Amino acid sequence: MTVTASLIEFALGPIKASERAPHIVNLSAVDWAACGIAGAAEGTFSRWAQGQGPSGPASTFAQGMAMTAPAAALVNGTLSHALDYDDTHFDHIGHPSVVVLSALMAEGPQDWKAFEEAALIGMEASVRIGVWLGRDHYQRGFHQTATAGAFGACLGLIRLHGLTAPKARAALGLCASMASGLKAQFGTMGKPLNAGLAARAAVEATRWAAAGMTGPAEGLEAFAAAHDAACDEAALVDLGIDWRLDNLSHKFHACCHGLHATLEALRAANVTEMEAIDIETHPRWMSVCNQPDPDTGLGAKFSYRHVAAMAALGYPTDDIGSFTDEIAKDPIIATMRHSVTVHASGDLSETQARVRIKTPDGDVIATYDLADQVPVDQLTGRIRQKIGTLLGVERATQLWSAMQTREMPAFQTACFQIKRAPD
Amino acid sequence: MTVTASLIEFALGPIKASERAPHIVNLSAVDWAACGIAGAAEGTFSRWAQGQGPSGPASTFAQGMAMTAPAAALVNGTLSHALDYDDTHFDHIGHPSVVVLSALMAEGPQDWKAFEEAALIGMEASVRIGVWLGRDHYQRGFHQTATAGAFGACLGLIRLHGLTAPKARAALGLCASMASGLKAQFGTMGKPLNAGLAARAAVEATRWAAAGMTGPAEGLEAFAAAHDAACDEAALVDLGIDWRLDNLSHKFHACCHGLHATLEALRAANVTEMEAIDIETHPRWMSVCNQPDPDTGLGAKFSYRHVAAMAALGYPTDDIGSFTDEIAKDPIIATMRHSVTVHASGDLSETQARVRIKTPDGDVIATYDLADQVPVDQLTGRIRQKIGTLLGVERATQLWSAMQTREMPAFQTACFQIKRAPD
Repeated sequence: MTVTASLIEFALGPIKASERAPHIVNLSAVDWAACGIAGAAEGTFSRWAQGQGPSGPASTFAQGMAMTAPAAALVNGTLSHALDYDDTHFDHIGHPSVVVLSALMAEGPQDWKAFEEAALIGMEASVRIGVWLGRDHYQRGFHQTATAGAFGACLGLIRLHGLTAPKARAALGLCASMASGLKAQFGTMGKPLNAGLAARAAVEATRWAAAGMTGPAEGLEAFAAAHDAACDEAALVDLGIDWRLDNLSHKFHACCHGLHATLEALRAANVTEMEAIDIETHPRWMSVCNQPDPDTGLGAKFSYRHVAAMAALGYPTDDIGSFTDEIAKDPIIATMRHSVTVHASGDLSETQARVRIKTPDGDVIATYDLADQVPVDQLTGRIRQKIGTLLGVERATQLWSAMQTREMPAFQTACFQIKRAPD
Repeated sequence: MTVTASLIEFALGPIKASERAPHIVNLSAVDWAACGIAGAAEGTFSRWAQGQGPSGPASTFAQGMAMTAPAAALVNGTLSHALDYDDTHFDHIGHPSVVVLSALMAEGPQDWKAFEEAALIGMEASVRIGVWLGRDHYQRGFHQTATAGAFGACLGLIRLHGLTAPKARAALGLCASMASGLKAQFGTMGKPLNAGLAARAAVEATRWAAAGMTGPAEGLEAFAAAHDAACDEAALVDLGIDWRLDNLSHKFHACCHGLHATLEALRAANVTEMEAIDIETHPRWMSVCNQPDPDTGLGAKFSYRHVAAMAALGYPTDDIGSFTDEIAKDPIIATMRHSVTVHASGDLSETQARVRIKTPDGDVIATYDLADQVPVDQLTGRIRQKIGTLLGVERATQLWSAMQTREMPAFQTACFQIKRAPD
């Protein structure tokens, strides 16, 4: 059986999710919404989003703007990735929610269970497809968030719409021509756009196939052949039994992912008074996020010394408002930075960090590995706190309550402030 | 200087076209329009196109439908390639007009000269970029019409809009994430869609860059690196001096391109009574378009024996209405087919054919090479005849006269039946 056929069988068959996976999907839904709402406040992105509509019934994070479903997928995919604060899966290195959930929500699902199932399929498939395409696909310059993501979102929509298998094949076949997106966009507005374009590709491919457009029967294989991808068959083993989604990572600090293990280790140490900090990290991060003395908010997001100083001085690193030029230039933080040292350690993986904190009562050592699963109850508390920081109490409570009561219309209202009009 | 920088310089600088190139562009404009108008009559494509609008000021071939500029580019690019009857460039193997002209016309140029200059830039650039990406890019599965075409169209729009060089770089940078399209779509509706998606990508990338969105500075290089393209520097030699556009081929038979050299050789022989025909062609075509006894209109488009029999019996092979199931099953044609033989010859190129025709007055031998330039006056007559066959006298005359008098509003009316509303 081809990978295309296996994934369609997965998308259309009964779902036997792990205990953890539905929790992940529900928590990711509020995390995605909070990132989208906060992302919509970014100037250029906001103006760009306004320029895409209004034109239809699908609501967006762009204030008050309803658009066609493809346009809403484009806009919401882009806005929810604009802050780079959304979830990440390290198996293929991609951001599943911004593509998959943006595509699903653009179609205005009316039922939480249907949405949850489609999200389980789409997010799990996007990771599996990314692993199947291979690490080399990412290394040579393709943004897995977008390429694997478009196919994953397409499979989620195939589930949501309940397409027949032949139409599902046509959808993935058309998607094979539309799935694209380069890592060369990193550091530009093209990075979040990649996510939006992938979400739109999935919506369009699925709608067009449903309307009778035809495409190649083996879309995944066609894409992989042209892109010279690894096609690692091990990526599909235990599909639907073992859920890679269980290992999805959520971001709790509004800065480069390379700093997160360090910030979590500092948090785990549970020390109130830090006099000096020594950080050990994986060598690859030394060229990514080790700016010694940043003087801009953007630079601060890529600085071990700065974020460790913030943590020592009690600045909330989960707040995007903490990464300003003003705070980057704060003399008290600048002084504290000089008590922070950073080293590369060959015995640490990319997801690990080790800190040694000098306190009035002696040294404290703590380690953290982002690859370790955070228990559901802890994860729930962290995400609840994050969305509160991002959105304020009222809107965060509205979002959270809609997710907990599984009321889709209330969730849509909380996400977009306006209800979705009927198609 | 990078290829990205060279092409932007080409797009924004003074144009010194060859004598032939502007003729090619003007003839391609009416050829493109005729293909689009005829393509809009195809059932599934027509319904699909109706589903994309109405939503804006840009007119489309979909009857009476005006859409946003990106949607119009998508729809017109797709409809004009639906019949596969539009122009082809063999240097990179791509169809320049359907992507470049669809993108330009979606922006509603008001002045023929501005349109012609942008088309010269866009079409020439699409061929050059395709050659730079390399034959291997096509061989491994990418549809140059779409990949090289999106960049070419983007450069045409950069000219049309008069973008600054930094915004032009951002446009090509964003286009690098959007340029895609697989040859795996051949034989499905995804093939014309590739052209439409590329035209839309160019319109969106250019509009978004103009609105302040950022992307990588070297878009062409970023795309080529990820796609492992050849980057053949010879492709850029004499850019703006030597015009590859001079060798653009137009189709005059509504069937597979592999049959065209044979049909032209039969035409060149100028024989009124053919008793038997022996065809020699390049070996690669033997597996592409040598169906011995087709019994459907589609099969007839891939049959040397059938189209040669049609030519012998006086059926117009330039008429899409000649390729019906009924005519494929016609017993007189079937009998004539048995007097046609087909051979592969190693001494012929892919664009050449040789025919030996048995006539009452003895054998006549004729050869034809599609790579030879058809003189402008002959080309003009052939295209005038083709659009008359496709559209009927009235609309063909309307189109032709608008092109000859260089009146853009009249041309838009002839293309789309409705005038473009102001933005």
